[in-house]
Amino acid sequence: MQSREQVYNFSSGPAALAPSVLQNAARALTDLNGTGIGILEHSHRGSAFLEVLQAAEANIRTLAAVPDDYAVLFMTASATHHFTLLARNFLASSAGDATADYCDTGVWSNKAIAAAKPFGNVHIACSAAPDFTAIPTTLNLSPGTRYVHFTSNNTIYGTQWQTEPQVGATPLICDASSDIFSKPIDISRYALLYAGAQKNLGPSGISLVIARREFLATAAPGLAPLEDYRTYDREQSLYNTPNTFGIFVIGETVKWLLAQGGLAAIAEHNAHKAARLYNFLEESEMWRARARVGHRSLMNVTFGGSTKEHEEAFLTRAEALGLSGLRGHRALGGLRASIYNAFPLQGVEALIAALKAYELENR
Amino acid sequence: MQSREQVYNFSSGPAALAPSVLQNAARALTDLNGTGIGILEHSHRGSAFLEVLQAAEANIRTLAAVPDDYAVLFMTASATHHFTLLARNFLASSAGDATADYCDTGVWSNKAIAAAKPFGNVHIACSAAPDFTAIPTTLNLSPGTRYVHFTSNNTIYGTQWQTEPQVGATPLICDASSDIFSKPIDISRYALLYAGAQKNLGPSGISLVIARREFLATAAPGLAPLEDYRTYDREQSLYNTPNTFGIFVIGETVKWLLAQGGLAAIAEHNAHKAARLYNFLEESEMWRARARVGHRSLMNVTFGGSTKEHEEAFLTRAEALGLSGLRGHRALGGLRASIYNAFPLQGVEALIAALKAYELENR
Repeated sequence: MQSREQVYNFSSGPAALAPSVLQNAARALTDLNGTGIGILEHSHRGSAFLEVLQAAEANIRTLAAVPDDYAVLFMTASATHHFTLLARNFLASSAGDATADYCDTGVWSNKAIAAAKPFGNVHIACSAAPDFTAIPTTLNLSPGTRYVHFTSNNTIYGTQWQTEPQVGATPLICDASSDIFSKPIDISRYALLYAGAQKNLGPSGISLVIARREFLATAAPGLAPLEDYRTYDREQSLYNTPNTFGIFVIGETVKWLLAQGGLAAIAEHNAHKAARLYNFLEESEMWRARARVGHRSLMNVTFGGSTKEHEEAFLTRAEALGLSGLRGHRALGGLRASIYNAFPLQGVEALIAALKAYELENR
Repeated sequence: MQSREQVYNFSSGPAALAPSVLQNAARALTDLNGTGIGILEHSHRGSAFLEVLQAAEANIRTLAAVPDDYAVLFMTASATHHFTLLARNFLASSAGDATADYCDTGVWSNKAIAAAKPFGNVHIACSAAPDFTAIPTTLNLSPGTRYVHFTSNNTIYGTQWQTEPQVGATPLICDASSDIFSKPIDISRYALLYAGAQKNLGPSGISLVIARREFLATAAPGLAPLEDYRTYDREQSLYNTPNTFGIFVIGETVKWLLAQGGLAAIAEHNAHKAARLYNFLEESEMWRARARVGHRSLMNVTFGGSTKEHEEAFLTRAEALGLSGLRGHRALGGLRASIYNAFPLQGVEALIAALKAYELENR
């Protein structure tokens, strides 16, 4: 048995949320805003939930300065399902000869690419293969491409685009699942941005989509209503019963972000947290960061030890110390500290202290 | 401001959940089972959540005596999305000439029919049109039909199949969203049964599927992984990040049902609740049930007043009395009392008392 005060949760997702968000959610489970009915039990068409929905959207628009010609959508589709939906909406054509460009920077990019292939031609505009320790610097766009897709932060490899890929007038689509709202963003550069909520926004089982309406209008005809992004825009995410609790928690998280000072403030906090850890890794002789300088993720710090044995021994000790979820992704091994928005600086300091102590004892 | 003690929630869905389920969920939000990490924050691949998932599945298998050759799947697809997925999996064929039979008993049946049409031939095996006050007694099955689809309970019209349609060896698919686990069920009669969780199981944004593996094996080839039911079976609903909180709440609800004495016990409770209300409506001169005797839903009691004015006046008074969510569906008008598993008998008694008092004052 461990109490919340004794544990730092480095999970890559679902991941740590702000304590105040969880407290508000716990209260709302039995009574949403003095209605005597809990958030799970309210009709999605009733005024109490509609207030939650509208406030969540309005606060997202404020937080990220979303332009008015952009839709803000809540969908139950996961990021993985969006891989298919995006291609079905924007790559598929009756002749089947359209092309979309994809940036291949990691495991999730690869899954997006595989999911798109049944719908048309997929061109790899850039690739970080084989080691995926850096973000490619040049793009090779195909003529007449429908869109360019990229993964802004690579959860598994621990790399992150420092700025958006330069694509001119080509519609830019971004899987922002693991760094959404972690720093200021210019939404106008994007045709469509999507994010599974379970890292920086809220619970799993819901995603947020922000999309230019003019781009949504280019979708293929004849789509099933729930597989057509335009349906969610037209029906304010209420064509069918949405994930009402997920929308509530996302709304609370966005309120919390605004209370922290917004995206510039959280970016500063995130940069400080990550710098503390990367600086330690630079100094250490036993532990070293995996991703290359200038390409490193502020959200997922991947690193390794001088031997596999040290990695395993440290992981065992870390769990006992309440440093939870540090094992690297099974595809890669090593260690990974996921330090999203809600992850506290004290947790990073505790990890550094533990890594330092282990190194001193074992050098 | 109203407290939980002052309100009875007759919402048709999302709907009332058992208070103990909500209390357990609130506790788990900050700390799941003494791990020091909340249910929203646990990795879906970690042992703490895997225990939740496995217990939920095991308890569902116990509660409904699910045969071993059936899969129990948790999906984020809503019932409405299943309308499309089912046809894509089991009706679509390369020649496009396959046929599926649908029972048309209400608004949701109709949506399922519309969603299936792009994938093949849809034959209406029976119809309750135009008034939808009864369940048809005879089926006209088409030769070689792929499956028969029916909606076990019609939330909007307030009718319910008293027994499954007789389809012989034809695979039977059921949308059980609004009466799942409200009474004993013989799963072996079904090829596939699906239910959005937000009425009898838990929160919105998740659905439960119980399906014969032999039937799942007949799905079309080349489907996207998250649109193929077999993926969820093969990967134990963990191909992608599932709705972990939804699975937790469904698990708690199923534990609560087992503690109530299982499906036979809850069926008795439900029959008693509904009989109290229907019996009152039979006796009343002002209020009368909409659905025909022998076809009435134990979950959604639809009724009307002698005039529209009485209906509106009563709805206003009901809200003031803490009888919430009684307005009938916008497609139909009138009143509707949704009294799913977790809705208490005292709420039904309070409604009867209020209807009776209104009638006495206004006759």
